[in-house]
Amino acid sequence: MKIDGTHYRTIWVNEDGWSVEVIDQLKLPHAFETMRLASADDAARAIKDMVVRGAPLIGATAAYGFCMALRVDASDASVKATYDMLAATRPTAINLKWALDAMVEAVMPLAPDARVAAAYARAAKICDDDVEICRQIGVHGLALIRGIAEAKPGKVVNLLTHCNAGWLACVDWGTALAPIYMAHDAGIRVHVWVDETRPRNQGASLTAFELGRHGVPHTIIPDNAGGHLMQHGQVDMCIVGTDRTTARGDVANKIGTYLKALAAHANDVPFYVALPYTTIDWTLSDGVAEIPIEQRAAEEVTHMTGRSDKGDIVTVQISAPGSGAANYGFDVTPARYVTGLVTERGVAAASREGLAALYPEFARG
Amino acid sequence: MKIDGTHYRTIWVNEDGWSVEVIDQLKLPHAFETMRLASADDAARAIKDMVVRGAPLIGATAAYGFCMALRVDASDASVKATYDMLAATRPTAINLKWALDAMVEAVMPLAPDARVAAAYARAAKICDDDVEICRQIGVHGLALIRGIAEAKPGKVVNLLTHCNAGWLACVDWGTALAPIYMAHDAGIRVHVWVDETRPRNQGASLTAFELGRHGVPHTIIPDNAGGHLMQHGQVDMCIVGTDRTTARGDVANKIGTYLKALAAHANDVPFYVALPYTTIDWTLSDGVAEIPIEQRAAEEVTHMTGRSDKGDIVTVQISAPGSGAANYGFDVTPARYVTGLVTERGVAAASREGLAALYPEFARG
Repeated sequence: MKIDGTHYRTIWVNEDGWSVEVIDQLKLPHAFETMRLASADDAARAIKDMVVRGAPLIGATAAYGFCMALRVDASDASVKATYDMLAATRPTAINLKWALDAMVEAVMPLAPDARVAAAYARAAKICDDDVEICRQIGVHGLALIRGIAEAKPGKVVNLLTHCNAGWLACVDWGTALAPIYMAHDAGIRVHVWVDETRPRNQGASLTAFELGRHGVPHTIIPDNAGGHLMQHGQVDMCIVGTDRTTARGDVANKIGTYLKALAAHANDVPFYVALPYTTIDWTLSDGVAEIPIEQRAAEEVTHMTGRSDKGDIVTVQISAPGSGAANYGFDVTPARYVTGLVTERGVAAASREGLAALYPEFARG
Repeated sequence: MKIDGTHYRTIWVNEDGWSVEVIDQLKLPHAFETMRLASADDAARAIKDMVVRGAPLIGATAAYGFCMALRVDASDASVKATYDMLAATRPTAINLKWALDAMVEAVMPLAPDARVAAAYARAAKICDDDVEICRQIGVHGLALIRGIAEAKPGKVVNLLTHCNAGWLACVDWGTALAPIYMAHDAGIRVHVWVDETRPRNQGASLTAFELGRHGVPHTIIPDNAGGHLMQHGQVDMCIVGTDRTTARGDVANKIGTYLKALAAHANDVPFYVALPYTTIDWTLSDGVAEIPIEQRAAEEVTHMTGRSDKGDIVTVQISAPGSGAANYGFDVTPARYVTGLVTERGVAAASREGLAALYPEFARG
């Protein structure tokens, strides 16, 4: 995607041929800066601190972190230790494990001195594949938006999204936002209600930033507002991303997604989830019971960072001093509230049968 | 209620006998300051700017604003102009209209020179009645909490509340929080999940402040988290306030209440709404269609005020520059998602029949 006319991916190998550059998402939306990652530890820290976030980008960053560890030590022991270290950075996103498994598979059959080159090649392919997968998700999701637009000719199609499942969450394009970019580019009049997405405000900061730079009409809303809007016919379709999807179609995504799915269900608003196949965890069935939910620091809830009118970036406490806070990173939306799963292969029903029909090679009997 | 050992109401007449003092809720939780209101315009501004908020306290403040206008001019024309000016300060809360109607009714039969004294007497009675009504709400709500506690002996009763329906929203005690204070004081082990309540964070600032000062165990959560907690059995009961309740039991309350009611319904968690009878609008039936929903400034969403680590109060922009925001103050929860209405007369079913049984003198045939 473009920022001020320049095409960017969210992660790339520097001119030195081995270190990696990422967009520092902690600085957005107030500043656009990149950060150099020069070791597996750097990559792990970037993932943990959410310099990079979004399931596909977490996977890509971990893949390059793996490459950098192998540059230092390409032994079997190093491969294993690096895998464990990077896999522990975020517990919910399944792409992380998927990407690390792909890296191990690519290097382990080789002699240690051949592993580094193979690792970089595999990491590059993970990134290129992600771009193409997101583009395909966009094509399939575009058809859904086009269908809504055709049913209300001349009127604006109102979409609602939660958190950031845009190109900043991926290598390019995005998952949930790819169809929206394509619809906008195709001349369909879209307007996006952007959930603020507390506590880290990825909607108000990242999604609004992305949409604004691309010229897509949008309005930031508190996470509390979506139910009211759906009740009043102001939302034609919800579309969100996911960090892990079970084999029967339960969906883990940013905390609060479940509440929007309930509101969509209660108001007959279609609720779609966009995902690459790498986000599906074929080993799990009941998402509410089985998907581990990350808990993060209370300070993400009690404090907020932004830009003061003097232009400096300030962190302020916004809650009552002395009161504690809980910070669950994700929740699980049961498949029955999901209208469809928008994948790179097409739109699947959120069910074991729906996913198995699209992915017969992965689905277990 | 007490703050640092001193008993406070949220509004009182100063020693001069006519001006009014209120707790400046915009300064909470970082500072406890009071503000002198010396005219109807002061009162209107305090309501509009949310120096005071909460349906009962808005009514009480408007009542004293009315008194102060009459001190200057007690003519019929002044009564009418003051009514219109104060009634326009907040469109959703019905107590405002109720309180102003009560004031007009008290003064209009009198000669202008008798009106000021009668007005102050009526405003004082509105405040005293509110305190007693909230206490009764507490008694009836306490029985609900006690019932839950008895069904899980030795375990903590987890309650969830949204926004602030505590004593800061009323003259004393609160509506939704009155039962919680009484349960805590009665030795029942309660813990409160406090919804942050974006965009103005009345939960994280005011409710957490209140509960903390009273020693009630509580945890602030982002508004996004309640669904996840209910899905996992971490909430025994929700209890919230309301700004307007229709004759059939639809409930307007702070934006986001509806999403919690949907989650409670989906997870078999009882969802109660606490209210004084003055909050019931007997002229309305379908809350979603008929209750006007206030829209407030976008800056309440895009900017946030808090205390920096240097101790100063700073406002920061937290969203992408250039992106607009929508700010709906309230939403409506249809009666079918409300387990019961906790009033000063007892707990009513959220239905026309339920309310008519408790309030036969108001219900229309």
